[in-house]
Amino acid sequence: MKNDRKLEDAVLDIAQRARSAARRLATISSGEKDSALKLMADNLRAQAPVILDRNSTDVERAKQAKLSSAMIDRLTLTEDRIEAMAAGLEEIANLPDPVGEVMRMWKRPNGLRIGKVRVPIGVIGFIYESRPNVTVDAAGLCVKSGNAIVLRGGSEAIESNSAIADVIATSLAQAGLPQDSVQLIRVTDRAAVGAMLKLDEYIDLIIPRGGKPLIKRVVEDSTIPVIMHYEGICHTYVDESADLDQAERICMNAKVQRPGVCNAMETLLVHSRVAEEFLPRIWEKLSAAGVEVRGCDRTRAIVPEAAAASDEDWSTEYLDLILSVKVVESIEEAIEHIGRYGSAHSDAIVTESYGNAQRFLQEVDSSAVFVNASTRFNDGFEFGLGAEIGISTNRLHCRGPMGLEELTTTKYIVYGSGQVRE
Amino acid sequence: MKNDRKLEDAVLDIAQRARSAARRLATISSGEKDSALKLMADNLRAQAPVILDRNSTDVERAKQAKLSSAMIDRLTLTEDRIEAMAAGLEEIANLPDPVGEVMRMWKRPNGLRIGKVRVPIGVIGFIYESRPNVTVDAAGLCVKSGNAIVLRGGSEAIESNSAIADVIATSLAQAGLPQDSVQLIRVTDRAAVGAMLKLDEYIDLIIPRGGKPLIKRVVEDSTIPVIMHYEGICHTYVDESADLDQAERICMNAKVQRPGVCNAMETLLVHSRVAEEFLPRIWEKLSAAGVEVRGCDRTRAIVPEAAAASDEDWSTEYLDLILSVKVVESIEEAIEHIGRYGSAHSDAIVTESYGNAQRFLQEVDSSAVFVNASTRFNDGFEFGLGAEIGISTNRLHCRGPMGLEELTTTKYIVYGSGQVRE
Repeated sequence: MKNDRKLEDAVLDIAQRARSAARRLATISSGEKDSALKLMADNLRAQAPVILDRNSTDVERAKQAKLSSAMIDRLTLTEDRIEAMAAGLEEIANLPDPVGEVMRMWKRPNGLRIGKVRVPIGVIGFIYESRPNVTVDAAGLCVKSGNAIVLRGGSEAIESNSAIADVIATSLAQAGLPQDSVQLIRVTDRAAVGAMLKLDEYIDLIIPRGGKPLIKRVVEDSTIPVIMHYEGICHTYVDESADLDQAERICMNAKVQRPGVCNAMETLLVHSRVAEEFLPRIWEKLSAAGVEVRGCDRTRAIVPEAAAASDEDWSTEYLDLILSVKVVESIEEAIEHIGRYGSAHSDAIVTESYGNAQRFLQEVDSSAVFVNASTRFNDGFEFGLGAEIGISTNRLHCRGPMGLEELTTTKYIVYGSGQVRE
Repeated sequence: MKNDRKLEDAVLDIAQRARSAARRLATISSGEKDSALKLMADNLRAQAPVILDRNSTDVERAKQAKLSSAMIDRLTLTEDRIEAMAAGLEEIANLPDPVGEVMRMWKRPNGLRIGKVRVPIGVIGFIYESRPNVTVDAAGLCVKSGNAIVLRGGSEAIESNSAIADVIATSLAQAGLPQDSVQLIRVTDRAAVGAMLKLDEYIDLIIPRGGKPLIKRVVEDSTIPVIMHYEGICHTYVDESADLDQAERICMNAKVQRPGVCNAMETLLVHSRVAEEFLPRIWEKLSAAGVEVRGCDRTRAIVPEAAAASDEDWSTEYLDLILSVKVVESIEEAIEHIGRYGSAHSDAIVTESYGNAQRFLQEVDSSAVFVNASTRFNDGFEFGLGAEIGISTNRLHCRGPMGLEELTTTKYIVYGSGQVRE
């Protein structure tokens, strides 16, 4: 109990200092922010040996704890990975500053001139797992958009994250920016997250990035608004009018190019009129790429080698070389399936029919809907929006890639000359 | 326990039907939605006697329960008020439909054409108190923006709200729109609100409108995103360079024109260099208008008749003919006071100094910041944005007047020609 209180006080102190840093950060010029980001990049490169040394402690502990090799890989830093982190900061520095942008300005009949201006959100609480490079990306995006950030990484990366946070704090101080703009919660006790989620007076937004249990817990416990980066159960629907060569390229890309990410395809829907021709072709390619196919009965009638899909498969995000496949009678059935089992993340149609393309775009309500392109394009860089802190599956505030603009809010500024309301 | 379960099931049923109605409503044309709104207006006028009759039951009950006369006035409907509700629906019908608007569209080097399109949020849960006309406004704005709405009004207005909801449901059915697009929770048990706040699978957004305890409870209990319409502790700062005639008009308007609303002024800050001249003038006007002044020591040294302000006054939303007044040494002190005690709602400076105007606009981080105009202008109609469902004090999703655009979210549509990711 006493320890809990001490922990709560420590988290409260961090949040209060973040709030105060955010007030100053909001009025700092773009040039100063960019210089600080470039300094961070330089210092990361210079301090690489220290960071690698402390990272090896985390990796050693992970090996002893017998974490999966995928997790250990994500945790491991190298010279190249540190260089990539530094280069990422320089890229963020080169993006336009969203803060202060007047989105619109108009004049009212009474002479008032009203403008809508972008301002920082304030203090962001960022809760994430394992990958230490995320620490740098998130800090860079928040500093650029004028937000203070409270970082809470996974306990398995605590040494790496602490080393990185030290470099960032030093750089901020050197650049004359408030050092508390980027703070890491270094207590690995999970109660620290609970304490953080109640500080709605000091933290304006929580962004959790990680597995479903983490996100579910955050949503349930938080009194602060949460923007989720949830699962992607993404579909590609091959229409009866599809160019099947194109469909094959798009499906293979969506499934195989990087299966462990949220915009990879998990379910393939094929119109019955082209199933006989398309399924054996794609099966051959998928098998060659090591993909396990789990099909509906009609799929298995055409490709008997495929495993049987259970009802659960349709709502499963594999993040792996596994694909569920279903034959549908119509575009209606495809859209209905996507609405029922999908996660409204990224869904695509392959079609040569103008009407079906338009209909799919209108009726599928996902954060990004594609015609004749791979779902893998749902990404801030690929959309031309610059670096992203994640892909929001929320419907509020922002939906899809969350970049610098999405890390801002707005205020109205009103220029008057003595107007009063009648 | 058994009753609770029954109540939960009833609320769940409403939310599920709203979700299904929202899917259909999202694809309905602007013309059909506008026709439905006009039909609602006609039917409200035609059914006025029925609505007035059921309203009188609520009013009678309120009188017996000895509610305040202000509350009874807000609850009471008249022919004129019903006409105003109907006219409001017709105004909403005449506003442009935000749904389907392509906000931007651009082309990527690989030939992908990417568009950002407005779509409805989905299902809105709206929790409000006493005024029955809010039922009509909220339903109208949601139907127009393609959202289904679950209404939960105060128990004191249950008969009036039920009568109005009946008229709306009939009108939707007559117009061929899904009848479940607008539903009222008719169980007055408060546990119904608790049940509603957990249905994040079916409800996308909760908008509470009412007193602080209601909003606090909603934020604490909800697993659904909440957009608050919280208190307005609004300031007017009279700078040393102010035109004092203008300052007088603006202050009187901000305080007196309608003191019971969130954008009315609660605290007046006056620069010490003009306090000797300005305070006696404004005191005279305020007194004549029946305003009670609570001043800091320096204010009372100039206007000894003023009552003494306690520290609590600076953070109090009076919503009444009461004003706290403080003399400040500088614009810095004014901005600092507003940041510390204000609610980031609506704040104004009266000044002839270009530099101070720009500084105030930049450093005061409120939903609307005014130069030489009354804070009372922070309003959807006054800003030229059309009808509003409230004024958001959130930093996420929308800030300030929340109209039709703010009741939408976005999706990306991507037109490809076979692109895959490298």
